[in-house]
Amino acid sequence: MYGLIGKMLCVEGKRDELASILVKGIAGMPGCLSYIVANDNIDPNALWITEVWLTQTDHKSSLALPSVQEAIKQGRPFITGFGERFETTPIGGQGL
Amino acid sequence: MYGLIGKMLCVEGKRDELASILVKGIAGMPGCLSYIVANDNIDPNALWITEVWLTQTDHKSSLALPSVQEAIKQGRPFITGFGERFETTPIGGQGL
Repeated sequence: MYGLIGKMLCVEGKRDELASILVKGIAGMPGCLSYIVANDNIDPNALWITEVWLTQTDHKSSLALPSVQEAIKQGRPFITGFGERFETTPIGGQGL
Repeated sequence: MYGLIGKMLCVEGKRDELASILVKGIAGMPGCLSYIVANDNIDPNALWITEVWLTQTDHKSSLALPSVQEAIKQGRPFITGFGERFETTPIGGQGL
């Protein structure tokens, strides 16, 4: 499995809108076992996205999906940058 | 919902053993929507644990569960410390 943990920074006051764009855009992505969008509890302008994919290739391919391309297009105006980013190899657990 | 993203540091060569203790110990925790154990792809002595709970209370209560207490007991000798730790409020996504 292939995993990502990343912080996304957003325009002040636009976090909820960005989060809903992301959550809507990620339905039904082949090979996606987990994709969770969460607010950072300290920084009001930061989201955390934690992802688990069957393979890194599945992750790469997802970026070309029409639904993801549309989410990127809609979300880009609200994204101001990225914070920490960690690549992982998920082993197991609950919710996969 | 309540979420946690945390890095756990372990004794050299004991990561797999620690990971399997964690994965075994977390089955059936009330209110746990997601609990994923993953290797850090750069640091061979680090695990990432990403969690989503219905409530923070569910998370706190889980620490008293016999299965979790046993996992903590078994895993403690292999844990050398903790790295980054982020508290989140999950909004949605896949795998919840």
